[in-house]
Amino acid sequence: MTVSSVGVGTPNSLSLDIDSLRRRFDAVRTQTERLADPLSPEDQVVQSMPDVSPTKWHRAHTTWFFEEFVLSLAIDGYQRVDPAYQYLFNSYYEAVGARQPRPRRGMITRPSVDDIGNYRRLVNAAMDELFDEIARRPMDSSPLHSSIATLIELGTHHEQQHQELLLMDIKHVLFQNPLHPAYQPPSEQPQAAEPGALTFTSHDGGLVEVGHEGPEFSFDNEGPRHKVWLEPFALANRLVTCGEWLEFMADGGYERPEFWLSDGWATVQQHGWDAPLYWDHAGDGWSVFTLNGSQPVDPAAPVVNVSYYEADAYAHWTGYRLPREEEWETVAASHRVEPTFALHPRPATADGISQLFGEAWQWTSSAYTPYPGFRAADGAVGEYNGKFMVDQQVLRGSASITPDDHARVTYRNFFPASSRWAFAGVRLASDV
Amino acid sequence: MTVSSVGVGTPNSLSLDIDSLRRRFDAVRTQTERLADPLSPEDQVVQSMPDVSPTKWHRAHTTWFFEEFVLSLAIDGYQRVDPAYQYLFNSYYEAVGARQPRPRRGMITRPSVDDIGNYRRLVNAAMDELFDEIARRPMDSSPLHSSIATLIELGTHHEQQHQELLLMDIKHVLFQNPLHPAYQPPSEQPQAAEPGALTFTSHDGGLVEVGHEGPEFSFDNEGPRHKVWLEPFALANRLVTCGEWLEFMADGGYERPEFWLSDGWATVQQHGWDAPLYWDHAGDGWSVFTLNGSQPVDPAAPVVNVSYYEADAYAHWTGYRLPREEEWETVAASHRVEPTFALHPRPATADGISQLFGEAWQWTSSAYTPYPGFRAADGAVGEYNGKFMVDQQVLRGSASITPDDHARVTYRNFFPASSRWAFAGVRLASDV
Amino acid sequence: MTVSSVGVGTPNSLSLDIDSLRRRFDAVRTQTERLADPLSPEDQVVQSMPDVSPTKWHRAHTTWFFEEFVLSLAIDGYQRVDPAYQYLFNSYYEAVGARQPRPRRGMITRPSVDDIGNYRRLVNAAMDELFDEIARRPMDSSPLHSSIATLIELGTHHEQQHQELLLMDIKHVLFQNPLHPAYQPPSEQPQAAEPGALTFTSHDGGLVEVGHEGPEFSFDNEGPRHKVWLEPFALANRLVTCGEWLEFMADGGYERPEFWLSDGWATVQQHGWDAPLYWDHAGDGWSVFTLNGSQPVDPAAPVVNVSYYEADAYAHWTGYRLPREEEWETVAASHRVEPTFALHPRPATADGISQLFGEAWQWTSSAYTPYPGFRAADGAVGEYNGKFMVDQQVLRGSASITPDDHARVTYRNFFPASSRWAFAGVRLASDV
Amino acid sequence: MTVSSVGVGTPNSLSLDIDSLRRRFDAVRTQTERLADPLSPEDQVVQSMPDVSPTKWHRAHTTWFFEEFVLSLAIDGYQRVDPAYQYLFNSYYEAVGARQPRPRRGMITRPSVDDIGNYRRLVNAAMDELFDEIARRPMDSSPLHSSIATLIELGTHHEQQHQELLLMDIKHVLFQNPLHPAYQPPSEQPQAAEPGALTFTSHDGGLVEVGHEGPEFSFDNEGPRHKVWLEPFALANRLVTCGEWLEFMADGGYERPEFWLSDGWATVQQHGWDAPLYWDHAGDGWSVFTLNGSQPVDPAAPVVNVSYYEADAYAHWTGYRLPREEEWETVAASHRVEPTFALHPRPATADGISQLFGEAWQWTSSAYTPYPGFRAADGAVGEYNGKFMVDQQVLRGSASITPDDHARVTYRNFFPASSRWAFAGVRLASDV
Repeated sequence: MTVSSVGVGTPNSLSLDIDSLRRRFDAVRTQTERLADPLSPEDQVVQSMPDVSPTKWHRAHTTWFFEEFVLSLAIDGYQRVDPAYQYLFNSYYEAVGARQPRPRRGMITRPSVDDIGNYRRLVNAAMDELFDEIARRPMDSSPLHSSIATLIELGTHHEQQHQELLLMDIKHVLFQNPLHPAYQPPSEQPQAAEPGALTFTSHDGGLVEVGHEGPEFSFDNEGPRHKVWLEPFALANRLVTCGEWLEFMADGGYERPEFWLSDGWATVQQHGWDAPLYWDHAGDGWSVFTLNGSQPVDPAAPVVNVSYYEADAYAHWTGYRLPREEEWETVAASHRVEPTFALHPRPATADGISQLFGEAWQWTSSAYTPYPGFRAADGAVGEYNGKFMVDQQVLRGSASITPDDHARVTYRNFFPASSRWAFAGVRLASDV
Repeated sequence: MTVSSVGVGTPNSLSLDIDSLRRRFDAVRTQTERLADPLSPEDQVVQSMPDVSPTKWHRAHTTWFFEEFVLSLAIDGYQRVDPAYQYLFNSYYEAVGARQPRPRRGMITRPSVDDIGNYRRLVNAAMDELFDEIARRPMDSSPLHSSIATLIELGTHHEQQHQELLLMDIKHVLFQNPLHPAYQPPSEQPQAAEPGALTFTSHDGGLVEVGHEGPEFSFDNEGPRHKVWLEPFALANRLVTCGEWLEFMADGGYERPEFWLSDGWATVQQHGWDAPLYWDHAGDGWSVFTLNGSQPVDPAAPVVNVSYYEADAYAHWTGYRLPREEEWETVAASHRVEPTFALHPRPATADGISQLFGEAWQWTSSAYTPYPGFRAADGAVGEYNGKFMVDQQVLRGSASITPDDHARVTYRNFFPASSRWAFAGVRLASDV
Repeated sequence: MTVSSVGVGTPNSLSLDIDSLRRRFDAVRTQTERLADPLSPEDQVVQSMPDVSPTKWHRAHTTWFFEEFVLSLAIDGYQRVDPAYQYLFNSYYEAVGARQPRPRRGMITRPSVDDIGNYRRLVNAAMDELFDEIARRPMDSSPLHSSIATLIELGTHHEQQHQELLLMDIKHVLFQNPLHPAYQPPSEQPQAAEPGALTFTSHDGGLVEVGHEGPEFSFDNEGPRHKVWLEPFALANRLVTCGEWLEFMADGGYERPEFWLSDGWATVQQHGWDAPLYWDHAGDGWSVFTLNGSQPVDPAAPVVNVSYYEADAYAHWTGYRLPREEEWETVAASHRVEPTFALHPRPATADGISQLFGEAWQWTSSAYTPYPGFRAADGAVGEYNGKFMVDQQVLRGSASITPDDHARVTYRNFFPASSRWAFAGVRLASDV
Repeated sequence: MTVSSVGVGTPNSLSLDIDSLRRRFDAVRTQTERLADPLSPEDQVVQSMPDVSPTKWHRAHTTWFFEEFVLSLAIDGYQRVDPAYQYLFNSYYEAVGARQPRPRRGMITRPSVDDIGNYRRLVNAAMDELFDEIARRPMDSSPLHSSIATLIELGTHHEQQHQELLLMDIKHVLFQNPLHPAYQPPSEQPQAAEPGALTFTSHDGGLVEVGHEGPEFSFDNEGPRHKVWLEPFALANRLVTCGEWLEFMADGGYERPEFWLSDGWATVQQHGWDAPLYWDHAGDGWSVFTLNGSQPVDPAAPVVNVSYYEADAYAHWTGYRLPREEEWETVAASHRVEPTFALHPRPATADGISQLFGEAWQWTSSAYTPYPGFRAADGAVGEYNGKFMVDQQVLRGSASITPDDHARVTYRNFFPASSRWAFAGVRLASDV
């Protein structure tokens, strides 16, 4: 028995069989709870800025997703665990109705963290029954089942996105506390490392193809696959390090407008930025707040939690530039995705091009616009990506906190140019 | 053995003996915990606006007060429970050092609610030892002991203020939640009541004396006692009811600028006020959110949670006016303070002047300015009241949520004219 | 023939005869134009902050006042010069209808400055005719004429208030220009002066009377005259000088929170105040921007353009306090008002109490509240003063830019505690 | 004698001879003054929002450009007309030094409008002398002269950009005035017109070239010319009309989130948009404010003064989309630029593709990013375009108020997605 798996709402071909989907569902759901485990009820309820959501909300919203888009559709007369949750835990789906305003997610002290745990268990149980039922009847004989499996798969990838957000967000929450408490104590001493010199690999450019195609899962914004003409270019072998960033700072990087986009310079002045987010003066040097608490800045580690403005200014300072997303993808297409989860990015160790995945998202010079031929799906799931396609920059690769099987060569992450709370770093490129 | 008790920092005469003080200390400290008992860790950490503090913070700050102003002074080499708490739980005492900014008290997820419970127990234990030591040595032989007892007494009154704030604040927090959860379920059906007609009692005025004098405790802002000339006036027998307020609303009270102070009218328009805080449309009528959850508006109950702007506009609409604080005190001086704690104010039942205490604070037309001869104490405790004496209006009496032995005829409460989250209502007055 | 003159809307007794009123009208109207003469069309149209009105607007609004409250009432079928002006030039009279929002007065480039000049001439001509008609018929036989004369007199005092505002406002406008252009070039060298030592005159206090009473004109907020009990006090002989203010600054006046009201300290930090408004660093010293351009700070001259917060902090620093408005009036009642107009306040030269009038308004510790028995008049003119009686502090005396016959012992000026663009200074007081 | 003309700072080949350049300079400088002629001094000084500059400022800034980038470079010891103007009239060139903050350009009442007229005359005279000197010495023998001629040409195009801004800005200023005065009275009755049906012309796509190349002037952001792959597409024959826009409105266009980008929908709700900027309810219909005053909305005329958000929502509503800038250019490349200046856009009359130029700028779906190989010039002129390349959308074509010889097929205009005060309209496109 097979299940068709698709970019949202556009079934095209087979991806996972139902048993694999069920295992994936169980694994993802369990992992979310594992990530929340170190956090107290107090940690899980606070919202530190409008972009941040409470841990509790992430746990509930990803559960609501299955109630809203799977169980309500698949089961006649499905009784929601609590009708109020539809309002509380809808994120931004206008087609689904009114919702708690995003900046006020931190006002919801009840339902409690325990209530949310229970909510997750009840929905998991309902999903279990649904999986049993699907297993009893062949999928390929039922368009509905096919669509449901598609939406379940989407739900698991959606929840993985929120796993990364959960970690980004709780880092921001804990950083607001003047005590700077750690999410987890450091498990081991970070090893001293010496990343190799910055080198560039050339590519001839020409007419290439980018974007997702094929039976594997992808988000709708990754396709359609299409042709792009590239001029010859070169891509750096590794991410920019904190040591290199300290040189930029020492050379007046945050004080000299000539490196900056106009909006970037205004932002620097408005907020008094003089270092990446989470960096603090520590004696003569700098410390950086991580999910393992505050640590001395490691010159060998990739810089992270910088905005597009900073990434672009840094590139100007070096005389290089940021890559276009199609350049990045063209190079990355021949590399394996082998991420290893960690709470903070690590120094490069490999020769050749490295750190494409699993350390820090990489800002590109590409604005987040639809690929040629892109059409959002009808209905609520069509709101998933398309409606954010303005005033955002594309990031490629993945971060150390990205779930292990959530990275793809064609993955398009996106954030506003001023945003710094994502695990975003810098890879340089140049014309040839 | 006796202890001198004083307005802050100005010992004048004896008030409580040490045993009474100790009993008072124990009772107040226990009562704070009792008030927090119905609240979950999640409830206790959230801050719903800058004026509001988390429950957890109230519990910690009132404890810090004894560490900062009593234990550190009385005990050589006193070791604070946690040095970081000095920063986290200082409210506004500039003289004591830097502190967590008020609007960011809700960012402190750690120390946890349990940690704060422990903090309270440890400080209570240290206070117990201090009481023992004081009991062993006569107070009157030691100016230091006298001063310490004075500060302990101040600390208990300070904590009682925070008990009322705790309830005001958690009501505001819970109201943000679209589910409108109750702090406590209603214990009994509110009884139908029919308050008597609004009548006025005249007073001849003349040269009167107001303000605190004598051995009983008072805050520094209640004195010195001083002469004031009053013209003849009359004071209403009871508070304005919700039923009367509904008439004001029906007559366009929130739509007609002629009743309003200029700043008040601007505020009405800016925030779209059309009823008291916590009132919601419910079918054809109105419901009101209380600490017992949402209830139909009771026309017989006093209106509460109105701003000075609204109180003043209401008075204009009636053709009466608000009382001056000295008028209020002159009438109240001949009445007993017999408050009975309740989570929401109740209808008037008595004949004659009633509801002076124990239902809702009463806005006066008096700005909060120092009494003639007032001087703030030196040092940090001198910041207690004096530095707030601008752009605030005085409220008199007490509210249903004011601790039972915390009301006084000379008590001067104060809030900005736009503030609505206090349990503040309206008593009318008039010239004669 | 006589005309009854009154506090707004409350005719009580005779003040000016009709010829005197006409002379007063002509003189005031001419003086406004004289004040605008040095200003270009560009100068007259710009609004530098919401509190400030363009010169052109002042000239038009004071003219509209006579159209709205006199000509429309007195003349059947009076045709307004331009119906649109009723909307454009109403200030804040809700009863009269909608109006151009205050912060957007500077958006009105048309009608032009020339158009406004013409508007003034046409209304003056209509007023001329009205005066002729009134002269032909005895006033005392006509309640309407009596009321009209009253409103004309009010209009002249209203226009004098705007003459002072015009100068305050254009000073603020010109100060925004980085070239700091002068309203008028300095006419002569300011003479070196050496004010005498600061001394205090005691007063026994007791039961005194304050407030306006009698046939002379006053604003409604100056009455009713009423009894007040005062404790013994002392009042400083002169205003605080810039030299004394420099000592305050040198002693960390703007850096030490212990001197400041809580709101004041927050304001200092928010705006980075480190000196009075209009003071600029000039080499090692300070310059001050005046209507005569930038000048070195004169240590002998009174400090001016300070907020209530600063005045209060200064008083705390000295150990004295600010006077209550009744204290000020009680002392001033025995002094003559002999102001001499000037564009900037001058050093004290007299022995004894001086500078009560004609240099800088003096902040008092009194909040702006209604006097006992005060009732605002019905209708639009009742909005003149009453609706501002909250969150303002009273200032007494008058300033160097106050029109010469516009000062009174009972005059109550008022501004918010944070306001600095008025010509406001400091006179100290103390308990005895 | 010839002069090399270039994208800023990158001389590449010959464009204008020196006589032609001189004629162009004279014509442009004269035209600016002609545009300012209908405006009073009051009109010319006011700034209605931070994006808007006063007319006076445009006149001065375009003059400062020649002082800063031409006369100071070309003439040894050149004496600026007024050293203060360097601060007052620098727009955004960080490399040139500090400047009057943009939102405060409307605070500068002096220098007067007359002073600015004089400034323009003096700089024109200095330029005259410079032209004489250049004419005396062959350009091609002097790299400096070549560079100077280049900068002069840039200055004329820069001034033409400000001519359009001047009209956009004064329209916004006059619209703030509740009287809605006209910049110029309508010269003739707009003729009734009936634009033809909306049709689409297909294009095969493929590997095309876009961007400027060759000796003619262009801005730096128009190059380098480069290859782009296009999928097959179709472009609408004309702009969207007001009549079509009214249908969108009637169908709930401004009330249904499903058509909108997420940021767009938030903007609609925040500002209460329910029609294009400058549209007002007029009885049952709509009026539109134009530089000729308020007029009934003409259903045949192109809609204008809409944001990117609105353009994109409209396209979603129709089921079409906005064009990519390369699609637009590929089609436009075969059309002649024949603009005819007008104060408001006119209905389409031609068959075939029309209104590419001379009516309304056309929002594209392309974000404003650098072309492959783009490098900003060194120094201040390098700030001209490059530093704005984030969070802006590209507009193509030109508007009715664009100077007649200022439109080009390769011209890239850009504004933020929320901006509405440009003369921006909508041309639809679609996939094939």
